[in-house]
Amino acid sequence: MSTEPDWMADVVFDADGLIPAIAQDAENGQILMVAWMNRESLAETAATGRAVYWSRSRKKLWRKGEESGHAQQVHELRLDCDGDVILLKVHQNGGIACHTGRASCFYRRLDGTSQRAAWVTVDPVLKDPELIYK
Amino acid sequence: MSTEPDWMADVVFDADGLIPAIAQDAENGQILMVAWMNRESLAETAATGRAVYWSRSRKKLWRKGEESGHAQQVHELRLDCDGDVILLKVHQNGGIACHTGRASCFYRRLDGTSQRAAWVTVDPVLKDPELIYK
Repeated sequence: MSTEPDWMADVVFDADGLIPAIAQDAENGQILMVAWMNRESLAETAATGRAVYWSRSRKKLWRKGEESGHAQQVHELRLDCDGDVILLKVHQNGGIACHTGRASCFYRRLDGTSQRAAWVTVDPVLKDPELIYK
Repeated sequence: MSTEPDWMADVVFDADGLIPAIAQDAENGQILMVAWMNRESLAETAATGRAVYWSRSRKKLWRKGEESGHAQQVHELRLDCDGDVILLKVHQNGGIACHTGRASCFYRRLDGTSQRAAWVTVDPVLKDPELIYK
């Protein structure tokens, strides 16, 4: 007997059984990171109120913060019109979502124009990653 | 001779040559939509300052707003730490990004707990889609 909640039927997973999930800071609106979820991680996220992703590289559930301490409390879960992207509005523990020790993974900005543009790191490291993953 | 800009080398496209792109309202931080880009659409977006996506269903460039009028002026382009997600901070023409006539595609929120939760539409339609696509 399946115990999968009814609302899961509206979620469109890709051929690998995954859906991209955006984590947005519930307080200031900053986009923190994008990761992937499978059915199990999405169900656990909804049930526990803590962000759980699917690590494509490690091929296992990734309970955000289990190593870094930088867990995410989920205030809101949203689904887009196509049903194929999840949005999580979260409180980010420690104010750091990125493994580089920055608040957000989106710390590179395209500066300059056309052929001479370049990705420039514009956000500071808040904590040395060696102190996060020790 | 390739005229592809150097910064394109840092962008990681998937096996289909695509990368997900998040459009965020530059003024209020609202996440408007997620679509896909190929190299050509990303290059044109950077060159013109107007959001251009790749339509996976129509298999062609999708110059956002070409039918709806709801174009997006790009204020900032960002790349995440893995290089495999693009973030666009945009001004949304008409204040409507979604084909349903809503500001954002993320208008469904998971309300309730556990097995009894459901996706609830919480954002209003600002303009009848029949008046947008006429």
